[in-house]
Amino acid sequence: MSEDSVLPPSLPDLRVDGDRLWQSLMEMARIGATAAGGCNRQALSDEDRAGRDLFSEWCREIGCEIRVDRMGNIFACRRGANSELPPLLVGSHLDTQPTGGRFDGVYGVLAGLEVLRTLHAADHPTKHDIELVVWTNEEGARFSPAMIGSGVWAGAFKIEDAHAIEDKQGRSLGDELARIGYAGEEKARARPMTAALEAHIEQGPILEDEGHQIGIVGGVQGMRWYDITVEGEPCHAGPTPMPMRKDPFMAVPAIMARVYALAEKYKDSARVTFGDINADPGVRNTVPQKVIFTLDMRHPDQAILDSMDAELRSLVEQECAPKRLTGSVREEWNSPAVVFDSRCVDAVRRSAHGLGTKSLEMVSGAGHDSVYVSRVAPTAMIFVPCEGGLSHCETENANPEDLAAGCDVLLHALLILDEG
Amino acid sequence: MSEDSVLPPSLPDLRVDGDRLWQSLMEMARIGATAAGGCNRQALSDEDRAGRDLFSEWCREIGCEIRVDRMGNIFACRRGANSELPPLLVGSHLDTQPTGGRFDGVYGVLAGLEVLRTLHAADHPTKHDIELVVWTNEEGARFSPAMIGSGVWAGAFKIEDAHAIEDKQGRSLGDELARIGYAGEEKARARPMTAALEAHIEQGPILEDEGHQIGIVGGVQGMRWYDITVEGEPCHAGPTPMPMRKDPFMAVPAIMARVYALAEKYKDSARVTFGDINADPGVRNTVPQKVIFTLDMRHPDQAILDSMDAELRSLVEQECAPKRLTGSVREEWNSPAVVFDSRCVDAVRRSAHGLGTKSLEMVSGAGHDSVYVSRVAPTAMIFVPCEGGLSHCETENANPEDLAAGCDVLLHALLILDEG
Repeated sequence: MSEDSVLPPSLPDLRVDGDRLWQSLMEMARIGATAAGGCNRQALSDEDRAGRDLFSEWCREIGCEIRVDRMGNIFACRRGANSELPPLLVGSHLDTQPTGGRFDGVYGVLAGLEVLRTLHAADHPTKHDIELVVWTNEEGARFSPAMIGSGVWAGAFKIEDAHAIEDKQGRSLGDELARIGYAGEEKARARPMTAALEAHIEQGPILEDEGHQIGIVGGVQGMRWYDITVEGEPCHAGPTPMPMRKDPFMAVPAIMARVYALAEKYKDSARVTFGDINADPGVRNTVPQKVIFTLDMRHPDQAILDSMDAELRSLVEQECAPKRLTGSVREEWNSPAVVFDSRCVDAVRRSAHGLGTKSLEMVSGAGHDSVYVSRVAPTAMIFVPCEGGLSHCETENANPEDLAAGCDVLLHALLILDEG
Repeated sequence: MSEDSVLPPSLPDLRVDGDRLWQSLMEMARIGATAAGGCNRQALSDEDRAGRDLFSEWCREIGCEIRVDRMGNIFACRRGANSELPPLLVGSHLDTQPTGGRFDGVYGVLAGLEVLRTLHAADHPTKHDIELVVWTNEEGARFSPAMIGSGVWAGAFKIEDAHAIEDKQGRSLGDELARIGYAGEEKARARPMTAALEAHIEQGPILEDEGHQIGIVGGVQGMRWYDITVEGEPCHAGPTPMPMRKDPFMAVPAIMARVYALAEKYKDSARVTFGDINADPGVRNTVPQKVIFTLDMRHPDQAILDSMDAELRSLVEQECAPKRLTGSVREEWNSPAVVFDSRCVDAVRRSAHGLGTKSLEMVSGAGHDSVYVSRVAPTAMIFVPCEGGLSHCETENANPEDLAAGCDVLLHALLILDEG
């Protein structure tokens, strides 16, 4: 039996209440519930406000102090024995995709809450304060880019720029924060933290596929978001002979096919996704003047992602020029590959092994608030499986036992880090 | 010199006023003028009303009686010597694409007006009444399908169904007709017509390319409109490995490429256009649940168009099934290939030749109100070149001399048909 196959004897023999965790998840899921069993609780909507209110009420019930910063990030603090020490940070986000699920983000918040409830019920003191955080607009579905709350907090974005971001209806993030009553007074700026942990559903099929219950997340894939535009010349759908046309769709399929081939080339770890596409003017019987589509491209190896970026730019040019079309690739967001803090990852590992869970060392394919948090605090993540690997959809599902196991791993990883 | 190389000696030596025609076109073009020099005068908009009002005013100035039917089609009648005879019908439409030009449709209406003004100025009597028509919603850009005004008139659609059509904002065609004051009392149903002629810009490059001034249009390509849907399964853009995805975009590019190959196979006369496309939910970091795109497919030979239809359905299935995707092809509109009335086409031919214009016998690649009119009246069309063949765009342009020449051909073709 290796050193980390049992929990340190100094730790209390605590376990979270899996039923209570599940019931809280289901209660939160009623806010913004969709007919198909998912959730639509987009950032700074009325539903988001209701979710935040419920969360705050739950935290106050166990004696936490609530503070809200100017980005609407909520910090619920359970005092430790020594508030001079930098706190331990735990949490995730409550906002969802428009047709999102009941677990993405929410699980990380409510697992943190369940940890605090367990410590509270056992009246177990920690040395450090524990701060449970809800980050604003992680999804980026309503206000682009994603992870803007944690991003501002970590210094990656200016708060003025973040407040100015508009949704598709032209409502600004800053105005919507004020509208729902979550424009706090506190500066949205990182304070020193001893460590930061985030629990999350995997959002992929790997854990389930291999029968693992816990993912020990050592880092996050690098990811880039692009808008790719192909411009041609509009003409009527009937008269102009095909060879005389400058039709953007004469290049778009080849570009897409070659981007998929790029993912094939750097296989296993490469991901490419075309999430949205629009034709302008978008009229049935007119060759479009331009076609714009998004590309989300990911790889855990930053050098390979950089190569993919160069190859992308070159292939767009190659497919457009011979067809007398103009191609452009605009980078909308760039999140370099992240390697998490080894001490934090080790705390997760010791907790997962010590609790006897079947665990897997892995890299996150999705972006998370922890990407930004890791810039200013020692950070790691804990994954639990989700059904069929599906996420960002209404059928997103997870097993209550796995969720409880992940929550136990979170509890004991925090306690290990609390011991220092 | 062949028989038709001079105009019949019985015809008056009349010529239209090209300057007056041009000035009317430019005055109409100010209604809905766009910054880029085009027109946005969509069906039943405030701009369409203003255009209709101006047209009606011009017609009244030369003594025409105006009637409006329940589809908003406007008929301006110049009385002939014998109103017992079925009238001669001439005209086109005033509505434009959202980013449309100054000539598509408008030219056919104002060329008809210029013919009536010329006859009026010369005090030249015709045997038949001449009815100058403005058809409602030819473009189909705001209310789909296209050519609905002439379609109802010709019995291709029920008026109740036409009135119920909604634009993207959910406003119905019937309500909008009433709102702009063009819901007439007269039944929208074809009356007997001696002949019907429509002048139009070619909307393609063929006349200009070969240095012709007049197109003698013997028919119209068959055309079909489709909505093609490819359904997969949404998932988060990061974690799910590529081979495990059910991503609609893994089939869409191949479908598009094969549809272009289909056009290549039936070359020269085949046309395929992808005008609009949408991804659902259309979020940057989510593999779409489905992708829907439109296809406009045309061929002058109905049997070939039928083959293309069958091949389309088969290739969509072939590309989707192996990728565990569901493809469906829904026909939105089907306009069979049209052969115009030989006597009307011959009147255009004799007029074009008799006036010494350089003319070309051709088939229209675009749909026109004449497609429906030809179901209930002997019909033909006259084309004039447009710059670079461009249409359905703000840079649409035409040469004033060509426009005047087309108008002269229209005048004398009508006079030939008037002689009977």
